[in-house]
Amino acid sequence: MTSPVGLHRVVEPAGVLPQAATRLDAGREIGADEVRIRVERLNLDAASFRQLSEKHAGDGAAVRAEVLEIIASRGKMHNPVTGSGGMLIGVVDEVGPESPLPVKPGDRVATLVSLTLTPLAITDGLASWDGRGEQVPCAGHAILFARSIAAVLPDDLDPMLSLAVLDVCGAPALTARVVAGYDRPTVAVIGGAGKSGSLSLAAATRAGAGRTVGVVPVPAERDRLLAAGLATDVVLADARDPVALSAAVSGVLGGPADVTVVCVDVPGCEHGAILATAEGGTVIFFSMATSFAAAALGAEGLAADVTMLVGNGYVPGHAELALSLVREVAGVRDLFSARLTAD
Amino acid sequence: MTSPVGLHRVVEPAGVLPQAATRLDAGREIGADEVRIRVERLNLDAASFRQLSEKHAGDGAAVRAEVLEIIASRGKMHNPVTGSGGMLIGVVDEVGPESPLPVKPGDRVATLVSLTLTPLAITDGLASWDGRGEQVPCAGHAILFARSIAAVLPDDLDPMLSLAVLDVCGAPALTARVVAGYDRPTVAVIGGAGKSGSLSLAAATRAGAGRTVGVVPVPAERDRLLAAGLATDVVLADARDPVALSAAVSGVLGGPADVTVVCVDVPGCEHGAILATAEGGTVIFFSMATSFAAAALGAEGLAADVTMLVGNGYVPGHAELALSLVREVAGVRDLFSARLTAD
Repeated sequence: MTSPVGLHRVVEPAGVLPQAATRLDAGREIGADEVRIRVERLNLDAASFRQLSEKHAGDGAAVRAEVLEIIASRGKMHNPVTGSGGMLIGVVDEVGPESPLPVKPGDRVATLVSLTLTPLAITDGLASWDGRGEQVPCAGHAILFARSIAAVLPDDLDPMLSLAVLDVCGAPALTARVVAGYDRPTVAVIGGAGKSGSLSLAAATRAGAGRTVGVVPVPAERDRLLAAGLATDVVLADARDPVALSAAVSGVLGGPADVTVVCVDVPGCEHGAILATAEGGTVIFFSMATSFAAAALGAEGLAADVTMLVGNGYVPGHAELALSLVREVAGVRDLFSARLTAD
Repeated sequence: MTSPVGLHRVVEPAGVLPQAATRLDAGREIGADEVRIRVERLNLDAASFRQLSEKHAGDGAAVRAEVLEIIASRGKMHNPVTGSGGMLIGVVDEVGPESPLPVKPGDRVATLVSLTLTPLAITDGLASWDGRGEQVPCAGHAILFARSIAAVLPDDLDPMLSLAVLDVCGAPALTARVVAGYDRPTVAVIGGAGKSGSLSLAAATRAGAGRTVGVVPVPAERDRLLAAGLATDVVLADARDPVALSAAVSGVLGGPADVTVVCVDVPGCEHGAILATAEGGTVIFFSMATSFAAAALGAEGLAADVTMLVGNGYVPGHAELALSLVREVAGVRDLFSARLTAD
């Protein structure tokens, strides 16, 4: 009997979830509800790769050796310093008879759960990787549990585009759900020109937002977002300045927003987001730089009756929704394509 | 024209909210929408007092001198090391003609916004305080803004009991709101025997919970909570052990809870709370030890479709709701009284 969250793969310490484990069993034999992936490529988390590269002063061979050592000793690509992982692309190799995942052998998939909890073994010594970029071509296998998530990569999109979209697909899905709970709400997206921000704007519009405003920090982003046509209005403001941010949002909407979505990865945006949101409104925090205490104490200090959501990266149907937005909304596709070209 | 959030009282740095300011103007003249309180007592945040007391090795005179110095230089009791403040009790002295606060001169009130954003001046040199406890009898004045919150202390309750209840009154109010959004949900309260936990259990029951379970770490708390009769079931579990916590909750409820309320101030409870919550359910995090990233990444890693709320300390009517629970629910009153006696 295997655990749907992978407890049976935890080697140490006993009793924790795979993400909190220091070592997983990455054995290739699968349980009845597991899936084995033939791995083709790892997409290391940016913070993880940066830490490794800086530690080794850009020496690719040393970075490669350490990644190999981490995976061998931990049974997963879980950077012990940054605590982060990444995603992987591969082909489904074997599906256990009781797996609930909607995949079949031969499907090309991306995993939507972090590498920090995915059993992984490498068999080619990472011989095809020079250790100088986040994209790691490789051979090996990975294991998915019953409660893991994988998305089949669509044939009609560039795999790198799909990967970039799937990386942030929780944001548009949760935004759509929240927007649909209001009647034609006004929606402010802080960081509207970024990956999760542009998808969230498109999702809000599709879910019935009455009016949308994208907030960006610099004129170049304003021009890009205006050209993409994803928001009713685009304004410039520093999200860390609560007064400036709320004034900018209220200036174009005629009052605070019903729904505010925080998509910028800089600390200190909590108070501004709360102040920019109407009584009875909702703030969705997608930034990993969000401080729980700053949000909780900030709302209390402002006597702000706003619902504050921790942006959950999983909402059923999130991959399909995000991929449909990039297919059907030209402005989203343009922003993502420009970003991939620039990288 | 004064700002409802107190921007006109910020001396430095310019443009931030009063909570983020290093110095406030605590002048006693009030603006048209402000209220002045004649302060009788400060209730220092426990973490703040502990830091000061340890720094000065328990020397009360030195602690008193530093508190005086902080208030004089910052214009508020905002501990620069812990970042925390506390609450105050006083009597309303003057109410500006445009203040929306429901108070009148002579009302004895507790402020429900943090001392970290409340302009404060001390006039008696804290002569009546020995510097050896969190309760600081004093003379001076404090200023409330239009968006501040104060609760009139009821005549029928011990002021110390009221203060203890008001300190955590956001938790039962938000719990009640969430529970009312489901049809007779099952509710798990992690830390059910504590102040916010016991109030949340009582609020959940009153708001229509179908069944409630209080989770506590030690047998003594289990016995107290059972005696108080606030939960349908009481179970023992370590909230930092996700598997044990979810097994304990599912064991008594027959499955995960529809609503899980986290009221224990220890780090590492996020994964257990998520795992103990049903698909479509809600987790409310009231613990200031909550890690935003652990919650966000944990839910994604578990493919858990749960709504995660940052516990906002402000919900309209929160003070009245909490005071009515302590008046009308004997079990809540008993737990609070026992705690005050023990202190």
